[in-house]
Amino acid sequence: MQHKIDFKTKPLGALGALERVALKIGRIQDTLSPQLRQPAMLVFAGDHGLAREGVSPYPQEVTYQMVFNFLAGGAAINVFCRQNGIDIKVVDAGVNFDFEPHPALIDAKIAKGTQSALRGPAMTTAQCEAALAKGAALVQTVFDEGCNVIGFGEMGIGNTSAAALLMSVLGGIPIADCVGRGTGLDDAGLARKKEILAQALANNPVEASEPLAVLATFGGFEIAMMAGAMLKAAELKMVVLVDGFISSAALLAARAFNPHVPDYCIFTHQSHESGHQKLLALLGAEPLVNLEMRLGEGSGAAVAYPLVVAAVNFLNQMASFESANVSQKSE
Amino acid sequence: MQHKIDFKTKPLGALGALERVALKIGRIQDTLSPQLRQPAMLVFAGDHGLAREGVSPYPQEVTYQMVFNFLAGGAAINVFCRQNGIDIKVVDAGVNFDFEPHPALIDAKIAKGTQSALRGPAMTTAQCEAALAKGAALVQTVFDEGCNVIGFGEMGIGNTSAAALLMSVLGGIPIADCVGRGTGLDDAGLARKKEILAQALANNPVEASEPLAVLATFGGFEIAMMAGAMLKAAELKMVVLVDGFISSAALLAARAFNPHVPDYCIFTHQSHESGHQKLLALLGAEPLVNLEMRLGEGSGAAVAYPLVVAAVNFLNQMASFESANVSQKSE
Repeated sequence: MQHKIDFKTKPLGALGALERVALKIGRIQDTLSPQLRQPAMLVFAGDHGLAREGVSPYPQEVTYQMVFNFLAGGAAINVFCRQNGIDIKVVDAGVNFDFEPHPALIDAKIAKGTQSALRGPAMTTAQCEAALAKGAALVQTVFDEGCNVIGFGEMGIGNTSAAALLMSVLGGIPIADCVGRGTGLDDAGLARKKEILAQALANNPVEASEPLAVLATFGGFEIAMMAGAMLKAAELKMVVLVDGFISSAALLAARAFNPHVPDYCIFTHQSHESGHQKLLALLGAEPLVNLEMRLGEGSGAAVAYPLVVAAVNFLNQMASFESANVSQKSE
Repeated sequence: MQHKIDFKTKPLGALGALERVALKIGRIQDTLSPQLRQPAMLVFAGDHGLAREGVSPYPQEVTYQMVFNFLAGGAAINVFCRQNGIDIKVVDAGVNFDFEPHPALIDAKIAKGTQSALRGPAMTTAQCEAALAKGAALVQTVFDEGCNVIGFGEMGIGNTSAAALLMSVLGGIPIADCVGRGTGLDDAGLARKKEILAQALANNPVEASEPLAVLATFGGFEIAMMAGAMLKAAELKMVVLVDGFISSAALLAARAFNPHVPDYCIFTHQSHESGHQKLLALLGAEPLVNLEMRLGEGSGAAVAYPLVVAAVNFLNQMASFESANVSQKSE
């Protein structure tokens, strides 16, 4: 593969990050001519008990309101998926709202929001296992329909808090380094969020070596479902498009179950959420772009997807020095 | 415009760099609903007398060989333009080769390569003026066909040397800070390149305040033609996609003629060529991505173009808080 890349009509290494992506996808698919088929984006929505503790400036209702926005096609993730030919699927993983049946909404509700991790585990072990299994089942369905490249997005007011808690426990990183402004906290709000999350950690002593317990205690339904989805996608040798802070925290949880999951991941972007850079470093990840985005929904993965396509395209479509009769560099 | 961006269903500023791009394109087109029409990429090819002085590890023949590669559709720029719906036009600005007429090759040859700037001016004033005028005329034609967003690429063995010389003189930056490895010089080659370019500067005392003289003395036919093209594109209020090191040097020259040209430019990427970061800073530019690419041809602009499209799409297609009935942040 490296040989095929090096003999394309370009200076050695001149396509930079795209060459690394091409190499990785070639390895995932175990071929010199990888193909990306029927790209899909699963957007998991779930509510968080923590949202009622004052960790976000937005009310919890925004979660279900944004689900309606997804279904109507008016959110950023809809715009970017439409632009880039990505099939979007919206999943109710555990929103605190009774949706009417809707053809574009997948009902995978575990419960109407988690409990507040400030007062005990966010979910039961059984709920966490159900979310993991449901995520896996959804990916299996998409795979069976012919998809081999999949991104995961999320919506859930309060979920940067859940992600920060997971990062702190699973990554062994002080909580203050994991907490950011989320959707836009001011300084006072940020200080309050840090206090609340430190208290949640103190109230729930869980060992990092018990990933299921950690995920149940601090996760969210959308995060656990995404972790299950990532585990299954890796098992199926799909290309996984990792989005921002929440998605990376879900991956951290998935990696705690199976250390090989990151081998199937393309890290699409670095989020502006302050903990993401450290979280990427923890995962050994080099994100493709940094557009200072911090929107969630899978929007970073969807917007950067054409760069992943470009990596595969140069590999499959560019001429070699020999085939194009171009002279090589003198030694 | 800022109000329209802020009331989209997303936290304030959450689309980061895409918001800045949307704002800029809205200003260029003076509308709240900008449109990108018939994107085009002009790839200018030209040869350099300096190439025979030992500034590149590739022989000069690679320039014409790569033109054939462009015409056959096998180069990186072809792959990325095809992927992203960009119409590519290949221009012989001054290649040292007699091409047969070809339907996809625009004959704008000024001469068969420039003279070596080590031994005197690379071109005559008349040649430089002809190149500027030809670039402008080509853009006018593309504009008349309905295009309003245009990128510029280049091919020319030795042209990182010409770009470095222009950057040094027009930017007032020591030549050592402008010189990089180009297509892949080793340490000894890089040292030689720096010596040769320092000597070229010493042999040709030209004032930065005389942009035509600077461009004629140190430029290349493809660079001068690109500068003329950029000047015309700005005059026509087109969106200009700036690629890497060479394109930015051409813009520096264009800006010396008209300081408003950068107002029409989207800086698509930061090249891995070492001088580019300083050159971007000189232009007050914030590049969209850094993929560590250093290929030229316009490849960075073509590969990043979907991000520019995404900026316009979110502006035109995303719902507002009000239209989607989504609650806003509490104060």
